[in-house]
Amino acid sequence: MLGRLFGGRRAAERRRRAGWRCAGAAASCGARGRCPALLPERPPPGFGPLGAALRSNLAAQWWDSALPLREQVFPVDTPLHGPPGAPRDAQGLRLLHPEMLREALQGCGQNPGGQALEEVLGAAGVLRESLLPGVLRQYVSCLELVNKRLPCGLAEIGVCFHSVPESEHSVPESEQHNRNLTRIGERTTSLLAWFSSPRTAGQWLDYWLRQRLQWWRKFAVGPSNFGSSDFQDEEGRRGFKLHYRFPWGTETIETLKNLGDTELLQLYPGDSSKLLGRDGRKNVIPHVLSVNGNLDRGVLAYLFDSLQLVENPLTAKKNSQRKVLKLHPCLAPLKVALDLGKGPTTELRQVCQGLFNELTENGISVWPGYLETAPLSLEQLYTKYDEMSIPFMVLITDGTLENGVVQLRSRDTTIKEMMHISRLKDFLIKYVASAKNV
Amino acid sequence: MLGRLFGGRRAAERRRRAGWRCAGAAASCGARGRCPALLPERPPPGFGPLGAALRSNLAAQWWDSALPLREQVFPVDTPLHGPPGAPRDAQGLRLLHPEMLREALQGCGQNPGGQALEEVLGAAGVLRESLLPGVLRQYVSCLELVNKRLPCGLAEIGVCFHSVPESEHSVPESEQHNRNLTRIGERTTSLLAWFSSPRTAGQWLDYWLRQRLQWWRKFAVGPSNFGSSDFQDEEGRRGFKLHYRFPWGTETIETLKNLGDTELLQLYPGDSSKLLGRDGRKNVIPHVLSVNGNLDRGVLAYLFDSLQLVENPLTAKKNSQRKVLKLHPCLAPLKVALDLGKGPTTELRQVCQGLFNELTENGISVWPGYLETAPLSLEQLYTKYDEMSIPFMVLITDGTLENGVVQLRSRDTTIKEMMHISRLKDFLIKYVASAKNV
Repeated sequence: MLGRLFGGRRAAERRRRAGWRCAGAAASCGARGRCPALLPERPPPGFGPLGAALRSNLAAQWWDSALPLREQVFPVDTPLHGPPGAPRDAQGLRLLHPEMLREALQGCGQNPGGQALEEVLGAAGVLRESLLPGVLRQYVSCLELVNKRLPCGLAEIGVCFHSVPESEHSVPESEQHNRNLTRIGERTTSLLAWFSSPRTAGQWLDYWLRQRLQWWRKFAVGPSNFGSSDFQDEEGRRGFKLHYRFPWGTETIETLKNLGDTELLQLYPGDSSKLLGRDGRKNVIPHVLSVNGNLDRGVLAYLFDSLQLVENPLTAKKNSQRKVLKLHPCLAPLKVALDLGKGPTTELRQVCQGLFNELTENGISVWPGYLETAPLSLEQLYTKYDEMSIPFMVLITDGTLENGVVQLRSRDTTIKEMMHISRLKDFLIKYVASAKNV
Repeated sequence: MLGRLFGGRRAAERRRRAGWRCAGAAASCGARGRCPALLPERPPPGFGPLGAALRSNLAAQWWDSALPLREQVFPVDTPLHGPPGAPRDAQGLRLLHPEMLREALQGCGQNPGGQALEEVLGAAGVLRESLLPGVLRQYVSCLELVNKRLPCGLAEIGVCFHSVPESEHSVPESEQHNRNLTRIGERTTSLLAWFSSPRTAGQWLDYWLRQRLQWWRKFAVGPSNFGSSDFQDEEGRRGFKLHYRFPWGTETIETLKNLGDTELLQLYPGDSSKLLGRDGRKNVIPHVLSVNGNLDRGVLAYLFDSLQLVENPLTAKKNSQRKVLKLHPCLAPLKVALDLGKGPTTELRQVCQGLFNELTENGISVWPGYLETAPLSLEQLYTKYDEMSIPFMVLITDGTLENGVVQLRSRDTTIKEMMHISRLKDFLIKYVASAKNV
């Protein structure tokens, strides 16, 4: 169920590699023998709706994390592909029309050396494999915006493309004769490019390292699985990798690096005066810190981090473990589920609908469990919502019609309490807001 | 300045075609002889930061517009490229590694007919030109999620790729020998796929037409420039186009179409039972309505819609027109600018910083004008912020330190009023909220 709701093929493969068997879909909840699965039998790659919502919540938190410095940080939005004219030896993925390619290569026999091919390749757009080049191209205008004052930053979240080495995907037998086959993957990437005086670049690198590590740990059940290590690249440039300890080993979720001024100078060859920013009274060419995160892997890290297997106190059966996905309230894709108890269905549904609208309009995402026409037992609902990582479930019953009281059940404590329906909105808003500030 | 702040090359080209001269950057505001431009001299394609923010506000409003039906609408996030295996004659853009292509074609002379080429093309990923195929692939899981109950919907906003016909871009002379050159464009697209019983599909089409047209007009200064017209495709399927009347003619910003069940049946050949949803007590294969918007063009429409040239009452000079971009408060990228008046700079800046944080944390986007160290005159600031479409400018002076009162100047009325600093947050929140509900 978890895999069906949150993950796609990639995540499932990871879990398989980790020997983490995803419990069968039919196991836990019994509505018509099936779960409300979000993925068909052969799932499309990528995340399901809840996984996508989790990633989008993570992205929102990432934007918020730049808040203390937001005055100086500008969000940008750069194209996914660059214009033609990449150097001949560039490795980037090319965008090509099959028709164009066929036409250009028709005279191939008379044109040895592949000159026609190189012409086509030279005229093709190149898909981005990193956000950095596009973002750096906006540096000069960013600088004007802040009246040349350093430090300043540019931030973007977007999809980048990459090649998946053969070892990482299982090639179907029918395709194994083709040695050239390289799969192409997409990943959602976050980038903060921070421009500071060379004098302070080292301190900023340490600042961002602390800030970013703290950020990742803030949402974690087990913060110690998030760690960092330093590295130097071939050119001796310093950096840090933030990583998460997955069951199969440690993987990098974010990379911080002091790039110096190399990339900037390459962008404006022979005209470096444009790059000059103000550091107090001096004019300097800034050093660039890149803070580069992999949000897809971050989502996966939090899925592993928050999954807990707890004994089910209500059943005496052996091995009856309850799966709870204890995602941080800020990250949980849905904050509350609304369900019907005993009572007149039509009236109770109207109450639910009103509550749904009120909560949704206040930015609280709601699961409309009351629409379900083949209702589950309360136990089955708890199990289902714990796996969906919904922090609260609200039960509307005939009692609600009488005195306005609803039952509120917590995912984390499993405690149920009664609350007046008019207090619900403020309670939930405060709950999410205070979780954010911890 | 407008073009520099909001638009990129594409938008500028449109404006040129429309004979709409973008006023020179240096004309209106005089800080160090230049505007804080967001685009360098050769701008990267796409929107500048304010244009990107405008588009992202438009996207947020689009999501909100599905609110009355949000119980039944699920947001999805599909990959930008499809897996290999597109049919030989498919036209889609292929993703190719230059190295792979070179290797595969080395034996080209011995391999006439382009068999090697076709193999490479067959193994290449295909970039999406529409959100529809990816979204339809999620239909079966969406159906399970709502327990097979129709109607339901799937929604996505994302980038799609398209070929730009040669006539629409000016080919530089150096490239004119290459007849095969086709540029590739990116556009941000919104899609609502609505699955309903065939019985009600016609009514739903009319419902969505009304809803969408109302939505576009809601944010417009001149709603009558947004209109609709109906069409039928080759297969006789009914639809509507929503369009905006640009100075150079009418262009489509959204397309609604009743697709019937053709596309769904193609996705699940021979196994249509999976497609069955419940319409009351009957099981039916739904008809698909696609509501397909071009948000980039929508942004351009609102830029034209909201640009007003008004006489400048303060200067007696001829031709001294004030340019005001009267974007709807919900769409305006920045809601308020904070600036310093007379008084002790350090203290006033601290007040501004506190206000900046308070407003930003409450979701109000702020322009930190107080960071500017080469201050402009008030007149210059008004001109600048009117062009940036900032609805309010707040001036913090030594009076503020004494009695907490700030000056608030409105973009739309040009009226200045005094307000206590503690009221500002609530005033701005209410202003945006009430503008939304008009």
